[in-house]
Amino acid sequence: MVRKIIVIGSGAAGMTAASSARKTDPDAEITVFTKDADIAYSPCAIPWAIEGKIAWDSVVMHTPEHYSERKGIKVVTETRVDSVDDSAKTVSVAGKTYKYDSLVIAAGGKVFIPPISGTNLEGVFVVRTVRDGKRIQSYVKEVEKVVICGAGVIGLEVAFVLSELGKDVTVVEMMDQVIPRIADSDMAVPIQEYLEGKGIKFILNAPMQSVNGFGKVSSVTAGNEEHECEMVIFATGVRANVDIPKQLGFDIGQLGGVIVSPSLQPYKDGRLVRDIFVAGDLIQCESAAVAGPTMSQLGSSAARQGAAAGKNAAGGKALYGPVSSPWVSVIGEKEIAGTGLSLGLASWYGLDAVCGKADGLTRARYYPEAKRITVKVLADAATHRIIGAQILAGEGATGRINWLTSAIMSGTTAEDFLVRAENAYCPPTSMVKDTVISAVEDLCEKLK
Amino acid sequence: MVRKIIVIGSGAAGMTAASSARKTDPDAEITVFTKDADIAYSPCAIPWAIEGKIAWDSVVMHTPEHYSERKGIKVVTETRVDSVDDSAKTVSVAGKTYKYDSLVIAAGGKVFIPPISGTNLEGVFVVRTVRDGKRIQSYVKEVEKVVICGAGVIGLEVAFVLSELGKDVTVVEMMDQVIPRIADSDMAVPIQEYLEGKGIKFILNAPMQSVNGFGKVSSVTAGNEEHECEMVIFATGVRANVDIPKQLGFDIGQLGGVIVSPSLQPYKDGRLVRDIFVAGDLIQCESAAVAGPTMSQLGSSAARQGAAAGKNAAGGKALYGPVSSPWVSVIGEKEIAGTGLSLGLASWYGLDAVCGKADGLTRARYYPEAKRITVKVLADAATHRIIGAQILAGEGATGRINWLTSAIMSGTTAEDFLVRAENAYCPPTSMVKDTVISAVEDLCEKLK
Repeated sequence: MVRKIIVIGSGAAGMTAASSARKTDPDAEITVFTKDADIAYSPCAIPWAIEGKIAWDSVVMHTPEHYSERKGIKVVTETRVDSVDDSAKTVSVAGKTYKYDSLVIAAGGKVFIPPISGTNLEGVFVVRTVRDGKRIQSYVKEVEKVVICGAGVIGLEVAFVLSELGKDVTVVEMMDQVIPRIADSDMAVPIQEYLEGKGIKFILNAPMQSVNGFGKVSSVTAGNEEHECEMVIFATGVRANVDIPKQLGFDIGQLGGVIVSPSLQPYKDGRLVRDIFVAGDLIQCESAAVAGPTMSQLGSSAARQGAAAGKNAAGGKALYGPVSSPWVSVIGEKEIAGTGLSLGLASWYGLDAVCGKADGLTRARYYPEAKRITVKVLADAATHRIIGAQILAGEGATGRINWLTSAIMSGTTAEDFLVRAENAYCPPTSMVKDTVISAVEDLCEKLK
Repeated sequence: MVRKIIVIGSGAAGMTAASSARKTDPDAEITVFTKDADIAYSPCAIPWAIEGKIAWDSVVMHTPEHYSERKGIKVVTETRVDSVDDSAKTVSVAGKTYKYDSLVIAAGGKVFIPPISGTNLEGVFVVRTVRDGKRIQSYVKEVEKVVICGAGVIGLEVAFVLSELGKDVTVVEMMDQVIPRIADSDMAVPIQEYLEGKGIKFILNAPMQSVNGFGKVSSVTAGNEEHECEMVIFATGVRANVDIPKQLGFDIGQLGGVIVSPSLQPYKDGRLVRDIFVAGDLIQCESAAVAGPTMSQLGSSAARQGAAAGKNAAGGKALYGPVSSPWVSVIGEKEIAGTGLSLGLASWYGLDAVCGKADGLTRARYYPEAKRITVKVLADAATHRIIGAQILAGEGATGRINWLTSAIMSGTTAEDFLVRAENAYCPPTSMVKDTVISAVEDLCEKLK
């Protein structure tokens, strides 16, 4: 009998799940339902597409036709799944009922917009889908002053790009620093200063209070002051889209995501649900840095979860373990990356964190175009385990943050990291001692 | 009583040992004896200095004056240590005797030149010291045809640079591939092809038989054929310089290096020698990839060993563990890197290796200037532990090879690596799934 697999959602988690299921079971009947018009696109690419550096076409990795012809996967776009019946094993879509043997729920996240007035005015945008990006690109041509609400990495990437396009950009952030929560202020301040050097203004400690205007945006009120603008972009993050899991009575975690087993199955009243797998922005993960829950709403995480969920849905066996959630953002000539816990998150989890930090270069001192790099590494004062790291650099942050991620994932202590850490050396690509190692040396000194 | 520390050698190991000893004991009397004229220089930088990309001045990191004024370290250049008396705890230098409390032997390596005729002719060079490099730079101006003997990374870096300077370059190699021993042929062939595309010729499987000429070089004989040239550069590697350890009767290992404890102390008839520490190209290390000895003749290794030896010599406590010896070389637009064992080395150690391999890009597919990257990862068929990796890429090899190095150092299996591996993602710096992870996925498939 042919296995019927239904996937809800067409983001990184959903499409990877469908492909992974196909790889595991060549005969399965696989159908993806998605409310989106474009599928398999890279939301992380939207800032550069707005800038014009990459074409919109290229942001969409594959079309529904590609999946149908190459992989025998049916993708039904612009179609919302109304409900799921996990006893009958059916999904209900636009009045029709479809039977499944396994179901993957990869319904993603919902853009969070603060509950204030004026967010429905013309000139208010979010950064989530390709359509959102195209609308921003088109609308921004006619305006001068833009306010970005949210100084997370997406907000800053968009701020930089719009500033490069000649716009007058102001970033409003309710917290007291840019890239709050995941970056420490000493690592984030240089990014803010860099952007201020490009003419971008920042209003920190200022919750957005209202968007103002008649019909269209004319200003925002933030931090009790009114700021004129013609366009507002909310880059205020996503919340897990748990509509269907809630409807099904699945257990929701402390952070608002669906609680899942290592096989990515949800729970109902504490009991594992069979034949349903959940992946992507809506699940709650276990942290590798600390015994506790975390949300890992990253494209790279979604792809890994989708691969495991799809394999399991097709009768294979894959486990998804605790996460360190490494991230990297490119803002003009700067790269900022992080993994595991920041100081703020460590304190949230009740850990006493100790920091080591080092400045260095990405190439030998004398080699042309060496860029500055700062590495910060955090350890738990009690166990000396590495629990987090952040890197600010002109180049080369990604490989290094993956390296530090593997230390967190393995529960490595700072001292043990130092005994085992070696780095490749060649003047055009590195210093004789990598700054990562210098930072951990500093950390070990501080831990004494 | 002031501790007297003597260091023999002024390379990465010796100068790092001196600095590390100073950091550990602010009052010690520290003297470095070196036969070299320039100290604390970066031999790895010589190819780019020959090219003119970096200044010779900048290759020398610090002068003897710098060490004397800034660190209170006395550096005696162009002075060979004749002998050491480890009972009297003295070194004999140019007829004078100096007392030590601790001694660091960092005498480095000797350039290996094959025992053939003609190697003393005018026009024959080695690539080791700043003086060698300057002589090559000066002599090459007057010649057209250059033969490089040895297709290791230094040989290829120099070959590329001389070819860029407009010279007719031929590389002679006794093995059947470029970068033999440490790189597998499937990873090395693309480098050879790239250099052939630049006009460089290769004669493989051809031991150098003689350098020919009257007074100066006019040809070489290799692979039973004569090849005209006006200049020959030997890049045939270094051998441990064990003159002093041999004189002292220290135990020498199977690979020709001094056997040392984790504290970097040598042995004499199996017994640990007190107050002497050995670091750099002359020691034999333990491999982290396999239970066996290895030589780790890298600048980065020398610096780590020097730091530990210097600390111990000054009364501190530092251990030096097994090595994976990551390396990276930049040859024109290509980066090639490796860590742990190649297929050839694995077989030499009697391991049955299984390989995984993946091709990818260094940025998102659609992002401008994404470079190709190939990652190969080796595991031990018996234990599934990762024992080696190689990367060929247009950029970003260094951070990734350090990442894989940490897996080897921790004894991670391929399967475990996959469960724990996460990568940061941003279109300008990475794919959503890093090629390192794809290669290990392939490896896990092969291991099934």
